[in-house]
Amino acid sequence: MKISTVSELLSQDITLIDVEIKGWVRTFRANRFIALNDGSTINNIQCVVDFENTDEAILKRITTGAAIHIKGLLVESQGKGQNVEIQATSIEILGDSDPETYPIQPKKHSLEFLRENAHLRTRTNTFSAVMRLRSALSFAIHKYFNDNGFYYMHTPIITGSDAEGAGEMFRVSTLDAKNPPLTEDGSVDFTKDFFGKEANLTVSGQLEAETYAMSLGKVYTFGPTFRAENSNTSRHLSEFWMIEPEVAFMDLDGNMDLAEDFMKSVLNYVLENNKEDLAFLEQRQAQEDKSKPQAERNEMTLTDKLRFVVDNNFKRVSYTEAIDILRNSKPNKKKKFQYLINEWGADLQSEHERFLVEKHFKCPVILFDYPANIKAFYMRLNEDEKTVRAMDILFPGIGEIVGGSQREERLEVLKEKMAALDIPEEELWWYLDLRKYGTAVHSGFGLGFERLVMFVTGMGNIRDVIPYPRTPQNAEF
Amino acid sequence: MKISTVSELLSQDITLIDVEIKGWVRTFRANRFIALNDGSTINNIQCVVDFENTDEAILKRITTGAAIHIKGLLVESQGKGQNVEIQATSIEILGDSDPETYPIQPKKHSLEFLRENAHLRTRTNTFSAVMRLRSALSFAIHKYFNDNGFYYMHTPIITGSDAEGAGEMFRVSTLDAKNPPLTEDGSVDFTKDFFGKEANLTVSGQLEAETYAMSLGKVYTFGPTFRAENSNTSRHLSEFWMIEPEVAFMDLDGNMDLAEDFMKSVLNYVLENNKEDLAFLEQRQAQEDKSKPQAERNEMTLTDKLRFVVDNNFKRVSYTEAIDILRNSKPNKKKKFQYLINEWGADLQSEHERFLVEKHFKCPVILFDYPANIKAFYMRLNEDEKTVRAMDILFPGIGEIVGGSQREERLEVLKEKMAALDIPEEELWWYLDLRKYGTAVHSGFGLGFERLVMFVTGMGNIRDVIPYPRTPQNAEF
Repeated sequence: MKISTVSELLSQDITLIDVEIKGWVRTFRANRFIALNDGSTINNIQCVVDFENTDEAILKRITTGAAIHIKGLLVESQGKGQNVEIQATSIEILGDSDPETYPIQPKKHSLEFLRENAHLRTRTNTFSAVMRLRSALSFAIHKYFNDNGFYYMHTPIITGSDAEGAGEMFRVSTLDAKNPPLTEDGSVDFTKDFFGKEANLTVSGQLEAETYAMSLGKVYTFGPTFRAENSNTSRHLSEFWMIEPEVAFMDLDGNMDLAEDFMKSVLNYVLENNKEDLAFLEQRQAQEDKSKPQAERNEMTLTDKLRFVVDNNFKRVSYTEAIDILRNSKPNKKKKFQYLINEWGADLQSEHERFLVEKHFKCPVILFDYPANIKAFYMRLNEDEKTVRAMDILFPGIGEIVGGSQREERLEVLKEKMAALDIPEEELWWYLDLRKYGTAVHSGFGLGFERLVMFVTGMGNIRDVIPYPRTPQNAEF
Repeated sequence: MKISTVSELLSQDITLIDVEIKGWVRTFRANRFIALNDGSTINNIQCVVDFENTDEAILKRITTGAAIHIKGLLVESQGKGQNVEIQATSIEILGDSDPETYPIQPKKHSLEFLRENAHLRTRTNTFSAVMRLRSALSFAIHKYFNDNGFYYMHTPIITGSDAEGAGEMFRVSTLDAKNPPLTEDGSVDFTKDFFGKEANLTVSGQLEAETYAMSLGKVYTFGPTFRAENSNTSRHLSEFWMIEPEVAFMDLDGNMDLAEDFMKSVLNYVLENNKEDLAFLEQRQAQEDKSKPQAERNEMTLTDKLRFVVDNNFKRVSYTEAIDILRNSKPNKKKKFQYLINEWGADLQSEHERFLVEKHFKCPVILFDYPANIKAFYMRLNEDEKTVRAMDILFPGIGEIVGGSQREERLEVLKEKMAALDIPEEELWWYLDLRKYGTAVHSGFGLGFERLVMFVTGMGNIRDVIPYPRTPQNAEF
């Protein structure tokens, strides 16, 4: 007989049918009620054991974490919390789980403990919900771009170029680590390395994505990127996933339209398709908040926060206007900001971004036209020669979630920018070629995928939204 | 006015409307006919220039590769090859393309030359078709798994484990390459490296995918994997993308069902959604074949080859049966095989796989139950203790395209296998935990994405189906 999933059975209208199911025991109480889960939904199905007619030896092996195979009759449930349950007629133990040693007991574990047991943590409600949402968000992203005529592009992970400038890089090598070959002048001879030159892990696929936008029109990347920075915070990973769309003939206004439509669409997708996991995580967040001091509690429920983004127009404000607002704001005047805003040119911190979104505008905000010297070399210089056509999208609770720009499409201006930053033209000859041959206005943005998953799930530590986090001193599993 | 795409205009039924379009000039002939492409389709739209009323200076700048902006009237075309064309009323040059230096001229370029200009090669019909198909195949894969209740999982790229055993690995490090810190005994002190231990790029996400299958039920990976092997062939990359589904409670038969259904579904998707690109590549292959010796020509057209997979049941044959067939085959007896099959235990080569598919069975073939000693440690041992529950799927033209297995779910058997291969248990403690706590039958397979793209596009060199190939001595762009 076909093995059903818990999800299928719980949404089953017809009862009094024979069913078969395989899954893992979450709890077993009163020698009678098994809560069984198979990952297909956050909900368990209740399996009622006829303990008087079941072998004692089998009953003892129905422990939390054990894999079992149940045959039985699907019936309407008398208990509360579920519509249907299974009256088990046969129970087979597929794999035992020793209750003395099994780490995932039916009690609250700390997130730190579960990180150390990351190979088992999706056996909890919290992590299974987070990872199902992560998967749903991934699909929503691919679906959005596919529906809108974008091509998915796999940009290279190993790069011979170190000109991207977005951060510290990891070296990729097969040289003898202890005795690398040396050149005559005594430096490491990377011409003998695997790729014939020094190679690193990519920090961004944008520059390569631009090459494809300038031929295929609309493209996006969705792949891993790396930062070798020694940041041990709840917001940084050494390995994380990024989404980077890039579109030819699109200016910064078009970029804002795209980003707003994209973010709303992706959030709408999970609001429609992942109600149960969201409801669980919303409740979890509310529960967590109770033990926090008032100031650290979330002002909105999880769903309200998603609705806040989906239902509001994003307010578009220039950096210059934003600085004025912040300079004259109460927290600035009363010195409540950790970093006070004194003058134009300051880099905004999360506290400022959140103030704009949560207190001042009360809607998602897109800041644009940032000072050139706090942004990357490839952003298009405005006529004022002081600002660039950059944009950051700010969300409640987290501040910046998306960063993008119109790219500098003028060969001479780009060369000047690179020269000023000592980026050698030979390193990016191919990037410059795009401005030599059929150049055009084009734009794009980057979204750190884990930041999005944190926003949607309400998890406070980025290590808890990726299966196996890589951070300084940690590459376990 | 809205900027239309070429794809939109070519499928437009209504004519005599004002339209606006931006794209790149493919050709400009007779000072009159611009073939314009914007990447949205392989087809160009013809724009007819009123050259008598157009500035001579502008006409001169309409060169291959130039980016232009055209306004005009969409009309029925008198010429053959297209239904509609644009009578241009305004032509703006957005970005020039110097015909003296632009590498991508309207003539046939060698694939080698285009590889050196990989940043511009999607401006050709061949590469734009290949990369659109690559994108469509990616989406088809995500859609298939999403539709079938699988969760997408991002397995780690940087791994601290070197026990996967699938191949040579790249080291990831931030240590000083020239003067690495040493331990007292004089070896490199990796505890001082970024991750506190030696770290490498992953060769497979399977082991981590198993951890999620054993909680979420059905999962898959789709991410980059790496091999530091010095293989300079048309079938090997140092960096490539893999798809690895993994399913709890599924045995090898279920694995075969899944793989067959999956491959058919993905190929059906592009047969339905990418007709024009496939038709172009089919024609290209036929053209290429003309200049090849008879023996190297394709026996089937591109579409026939895809239909061969979609329309036939995959024949399931044990390794032992296959060896018998091969041993008694004509090419073996007449010593036509490069590697003769003499006895049970031999590893099959592509020539043998293709013989089985193309000559003997005339349908895709799934071989199963391979000798244990030519397969990986994690495959489930059969009762005969000689073979494992492995499977390879063989396709026409390329041989093996999918490799999978039922995994060894028995703790003691797995430990013995690891001990025999000197894989330390401490390295894979978490993998062993899956067998300690709620173990169950589970299976999965791996598909090298670029092999699939080669199969679908008919491209003969794997360097031509990924945007920026990484191979020994090459990490350009």
